[in-house]
Amino acid sequence: MTEHAPAGSIPTPQATAPDILRCAYMELVVTDLKRARDFYVDVLDLVVTEEDDDAIYLRSMEEFIHHNLVLRQGDQAAVAAFSYRVRSTEDLDKAEAFYRELGCPVVRRSGGFVKGIGDSVRVQDPLGFPYEFFHDVEHVERLAWRYDLYTPGSLVRLDHFNQVTPDVPKAVMFMEDLGFRVTEDIRDDAGTTYAAWMRRKSTVHDTAMTGGAGPRMHHVAFATHEKHNILAICDKLGALRLSDHIERGPGRHGVSNAFYLYLRDPDGHRIEIYTQDYYTGDPDNPVVTWDVHDNQRRDWWGNPVVPSWYTDASVVLDLNGQPVPTSERTDDSEMDVTIGADGFSYTRKNDEDSMPEWKKGEYKLGHQL
Amino acid sequence: MTEHAPAGSIPTPQATAPDILRCAYMELVVTDLKRARDFYVDVLDLVVTEEDDDAIYLRSMEEFIHHNLVLRQGDQAAVAAFSYRVRSTEDLDKAEAFYRELGCPVVRRSGGFVKGIGDSVRVQDPLGFPYEFFHDVEHVERLAWRYDLYTPGSLVRLDHFNQVTPDVPKAVMFMEDLGFRVTEDIRDDAGTTYAAWMRRKSTVHDTAMTGGAGPRMHHVAFATHEKHNILAICDKLGALRLSDHIERGPGRHGVSNAFYLYLRDPDGHRIEIYTQDYYTGDPDNPVVTWDVHDNQRRDWWGNPVVPSWYTDASVVLDLNGQPVPTSERTDDSEMDVTIGADGFSYTRKNDEDSMPEWKKGEYKLGHQL
Amino acid sequence: MTEHAPAGSIPTPQATAPDILRCAYMELVVTDLKRARDFYVDVLDLVVTEEDDDAIYLRSMEEFIHHNLVLRQGDQAAVAAFSYRVRSTEDLDKAEAFYRELGCPVVRRSGGFVKGIGDSVRVQDPLGFPYEFFHDVEHVERLAWRYDLYTPGSLVRLDHFNQVTPDVPKAVMFMEDLGFRVTEDIRDDAGTTYAAWMRRKSTVHDTAMTGGAGPRMHHVAFATHEKHNILAICDKLGALRLSDHIERGPGRHGVSNAFYLYLRDPDGHRIEIYTQDYYTGDPDNPVVTWDVHDNQRRDWWGNPVVPSWYTDASVVLDLNGQPVPTSERTDDSEMDVTIGADGFSYTRKNDEDSMPEWKKGEYKLGHQL
Amino acid sequence: MTEHAPAGSIPTPQATAPDILRCAYMELVVTDLKRARDFYVDVLDLVVTEEDDDAIYLRSMEEFIHHNLVLRQGDQAAVAAFSYRVRSTEDLDKAEAFYRELGCPVVRRSGGFVKGIGDSVRVQDPLGFPYEFFHDVEHVERLAWRYDLYTPGSLVRLDHFNQVTPDVPKAVMFMEDLGFRVTEDIRDDAGTTYAAWMRRKSTVHDTAMTGGAGPRMHHVAFATHEKHNILAICDKLGALRLSDHIERGPGRHGVSNAFYLYLRDPDGHRIEIYTQDYYTGDPDNPVVTWDVHDNQRRDWWGNPVVPSWYTDASVVLDLNGQPVPTSERTDDSEMDVTIGADGFSYTRKNDEDSMPEWKKGEYKLGHQL
Repeated sequence: MTEHAPAGSIPTPQATAPDILRCAYMELVVTDLKRARDFYVDVLDLVVTEEDDDAIYLRSMEEFIHHNLVLRQGDQAAVAAFSYRVRSTEDLDKAEAFYRELGCPVVRRSGGFVKGIGDSVRVQDPLGFPYEFFHDVEHVERLAWRYDLYTPGSLVRLDHFNQVTPDVPKAVMFMEDLGFRVTEDIRDDAGTTYAAWMRRKSTVHDTAMTGGAGPRMHHVAFATHEKHNILAICDKLGALRLSDHIERGPGRHGVSNAFYLYLRDPDGHRIEIYTQDYYTGDPDNPVVTWDVHDNQRRDWWGNPVVPSWYTDASVVLDLNGQPVPTSERTDDSEMDVTIGADGFSYTRKNDEDSMPEWKKGEYKLGHQL
Repeated sequence: MTEHAPAGSIPTPQATAPDILRCAYMELVVTDLKRARDFYVDVLDLVVTEEDDDAIYLRSMEEFIHHNLVLRQGDQAAVAAFSYRVRSTEDLDKAEAFYRELGCPVVRRSGGFVKGIGDSVRVQDPLGFPYEFFHDVEHVERLAWRYDLYTPGSLVRLDHFNQVTPDVPKAVMFMEDLGFRVTEDIRDDAGTTYAAWMRRKSTVHDTAMTGGAGPRMHHVAFATHEKHNILAICDKLGALRLSDHIERGPGRHGVSNAFYLYLRDPDGHRIEIYTQDYYTGDPDNPVVTWDVHDNQRRDWWGNPVVPSWYTDASVVLDLNGQPVPTSERTDDSEMDVTIGADGFSYTRKNDEDSMPEWKKGEYKLGHQL
Repeated sequence: MTEHAPAGSIPTPQATAPDILRCAYMELVVTDLKRARDFYVDVLDLVVTEEDDDAIYLRSMEEFIHHNLVLRQGDQAAVAAFSYRVRSTEDLDKAEAFYRELGCPVVRRSGGFVKGIGDSVRVQDPLGFPYEFFHDVEHVERLAWRYDLYTPGSLVRLDHFNQVTPDVPKAVMFMEDLGFRVTEDIRDDAGTTYAAWMRRKSTVHDTAMTGGAGPRMHHVAFATHEKHNILAICDKLGALRLSDHIERGPGRHGVSNAFYLYLRDPDGHRIEIYTQDYYTGDPDNPVVTWDVHDNQRRDWWGNPVVPSWYTDASVVLDLNGQPVPTSERTDDSEMDVTIGADGFSYTRKNDEDSMPEWKKGEYKLGHQL
Repeated sequence: MTEHAPAGSIPTPQATAPDILRCAYMELVVTDLKRARDFYVDVLDLVVTEEDDDAIYLRSMEEFIHHNLVLRQGDQAAVAAFSYRVRSTEDLDKAEAFYRELGCPVVRRSGGFVKGIGDSVRVQDPLGFPYEFFHDVEHVERLAWRYDLYTPGSLVRLDHFNQVTPDVPKAVMFMEDLGFRVTEDIRDDAGTTYAAWMRRKSTVHDTAMTGGAGPRMHHVAFATHEKHNILAICDKLGALRLSDHIERGPGRHGVSNAFYLYLRDPDGHRIEIYTQDYYTGDPDNPVVTWDVHDNQRRDWWGNPVVPSWYTDASVVLDLNGQPVPTSERTDDSEMDVTIGADGFSYTRKNDEDSMPEWKKGEYKLGHQL
């Protein structure tokens, strides 16, 4: 994907990267725990493994580790950790060495930072994000066969994270050093990279890098079994008169080929519901590159991306619990080159004239922003 | 629904209305028959019953009458007939008498106006629309069990028509005289009616009246078996790089509770794909009235209606094949009172302040039009 | 369907038949009301409109009348009423006259026989079945839009009844006099009719006649929106370790083209879950006749029908609440001519030899019964 | 899973096992290539990558390697290879050494044994099965986004193999040496293992060992996106009057939690269609053990397994193309202990008496075999 290390890139550590299995959970700070519970438990039907006055530990139906999401009461909505599970305890030693060599803040806590998780390493990575690694974890009942507990929109797995960062190629090179592989990306002919998807497990991603002012958290995604489960979540939000939590979709992604929906929780944290991407586990899995001007790249059906999806994201915290300041993107922004004043998108390359008049009107709408 | 006949209303005929079974087919004039065939046959997978150089006769998978759609080559895109099947040949006599009493142009042709259909009555109704009534029809193979022919997005039934007319209450009163019953409508507190849905068969509608400059044809709708079939049509349009045929959706309607998608054909005629409304066959079936300011009325998930959906519609032809001039709506327009400059919509009545900031941004977008 | 009235047939009344809208509810006697509630409410998620120590009134999600099922505590499992809604109160007078002319027991009760229902006529019809007719009924909330209440297997409509009777042609002729129309049937080349499906509303049936010792109730059927809803019911029964309530299916019917599942309630009453048959509302709707030896007629995938499905059915009560004695079928039984000792079935007519050996083994299984 | 190596077990090689990525393709010998093509291409809609007079190379919609199935014309229906992809060319050296140390026949061919595949190692493994390993392979278009080519029952991935072997614990121990991990198994209280599922990729299995006379091939499985796709295959088989290719299902597995269907191809080779098992990629993924007497273990809905599913399987070939003789199972057979004369199964452990009478009848059917 990248032939050489440009100026400003993060050096490749001599230390061996830890063997990361998968994205495992996110720790979200919410400003009203009761209100957040209403959303994640009563609306989205995530399963409560454990809760106290300070935090709620939630998991999806097919999970056997203690949790996939921690909601913690705090003063400011933020992300406290992107947490990954590693293959063994030895990989925690590797994680420590890897990040210390890069000069990053690193804290290891044998009893873990949250309930249910054992020996853990937390770092603030070179991109500014709070990353966690752990192996030891409390096993809980995998509810996969508990069809008496399923609801029409049940979430069955944590699928991926998505991070906002100003310099996507720099972030990708660093993540490749950490052992991630790119599966898809969005670029333009001039060589700008707007976003990239990277995986450890054999799906399209465990995390993605989205170009923008960062470090910020773009979204965390849960999977359903089938597409109708995602539609059922929308229907339920409508019935509860909470449809204003729907930010974008449902739709079919171009990138990843998955069916998707974006929600905003009561604090504005963005949650994706996602189903049916494809197997990527072969080392020569073909990378798919999308043209940023292809208006089917983010929605295969050509439905416009709403501006807030590009502009809004969650603050991330450093290891002291303080908000990490963000840096602006210096490359072109995807919103500007697509729906902004100078934007240009196509359904069929070199065939803009064929777009029907009424449809041009819809696209001009974007141009007015 | 309506207590008295206001000034300007159409008088109730003394003649008995014909016993209409259901909406049966639409005759569409298209400007490039080959291009239209590509869309309806190769993309939407409607079944060709018969075709010649001038016209193509198409049906859905569960239909046993000759066709549900006629595409006819012509110079200007238009609608030549909204055609209904009646219970018996005697009902054609009733139709003739009913419309003649109203002073409408009426033509009866024993051999039918199109292939496959026998004795037929065509009228230009008091609202200006070209209506057809027939009973005799050629039976063809009902392909319901032919799963070797189904495709992922197969259309299985013609579901309904939708007409644009300036004065919705006037149109509704006339249609009630013709034997239709209202199932749902959109109103405001001031007494304005923006749209109404009316049925003969036991679904939410055989036709609907949408307020706007008319007479024009808003759309013709076909049903699929399940929601995933509609998503498959979107996916196929994406694969064929024809996603700019998608105008609105897919989504869940508030009105009708059906799952929907709106497409535009190569001539701009609007096609709805629709599934899963509810049984309405009891005479006291409860009428559902929606507030025009309820932003879940047209999309249960609160996704905005695109302006072209409100403004665009197809010309209709009189019995001489000439375009019928349109009259403007004098009541408030739904677009103006919802997404226009003075518009106001809510997700939760009396709770606008609770809408998150980012979502307000999305709604302001509509306000800029 | 039938050219003349054979000896033993029921005379056609001079009285006009009532205008029946649809099958509306069944009254089931259960021997343990608490246990029945667990099944219908906690497992099948029917909605309780009202309940007391003696009876529970249940409805489906899209229903607006008081109930679709009454469970009443009693000493013996039985059916107390097959209840149909008629168009108007005048149709009750017609029903009274119609059945009185036939010499049937008739009781009319202005306050209704069960809660929620007004003026009603109950009869023991010439075939021995307890039929009820009513128009006045209490309206309740139609829960169609209440997606916060839907479960993965939600039942949305009462679809049909199915009755066991010894002489199917006799029963069909009587039901045609009552205004029903045949949509499909199962016959053989020798002229025997094994079963017939008949409708008032525009679906494949409001009731069916299945040949066998009768009068007995074969099943009552509820509809789901989609096929996955039916699979979800099976999955839930598995999770609750109640899979032995599944008698047959899920599968695709040949007759009706619907997707189906047969359950047995704790008293042995048979419940069908059913989805996606086709529109039948035209007067010339083509009747589909299936050969009794076609092994795709009852299951389109050729899966064998279990013997209990043919042999078991529920006792029906007369108007005094006493079990109605049954008469044996004298024509060939469908079980005997298909899976019995002399049975013979084909997947491809005139092509039995092509059936693979391993599959013949499966069919021989049936032959051993 | 296994504490010690019992007498007769296969020694653990000193050589390092190759790093297997996933099951990649099966080579099937068919006796009528044209007839097999009709089934796999015209009915199951697998995609032809390449074909000649001797062989057809087929792939699934989301595959990017040359093929997932080779059909080769031959005199006797058989399996020529279970082929796995390894991480790198070096893993072929490891595979060679691993099997040579065990004294197995090993052939390496730098140009591959079939089209599209490069340097390959074929072995007859200690259990008698013809296994292949390769890394180099021709890339072809991944059709994942080609929704214009999808059909209602499209197969999207090769999911797994299933092998019949007399001694399941012996086979499992050997496969663990080869780097596989057990995810689920079926046992009884007496310590007999009836079947085991083992994985390399992060699904429930790449292959399973089923107890019975072996070595034989039980089935090869392809995945669909959703459950309705599997139902569509059944519907299509019905429409083509080929329903006798359906051997078992569709249903929900207990083991794996997947939705399934078993077909038999024109030569009797068994094909499973499979969807929606769960993520198993963590090293401490909980192993699920099922009691052989639990009648929901193989079908979560309690539907009986047909005898042919237990008894029939495909011959496998040695590296000279000769059929490998089979050895009988000496442990109890699953069919005997469940549906055979001495069999006993339960829906609720220790609660056989609660099974309804009509259902016992269905189970007695199995007892008569």
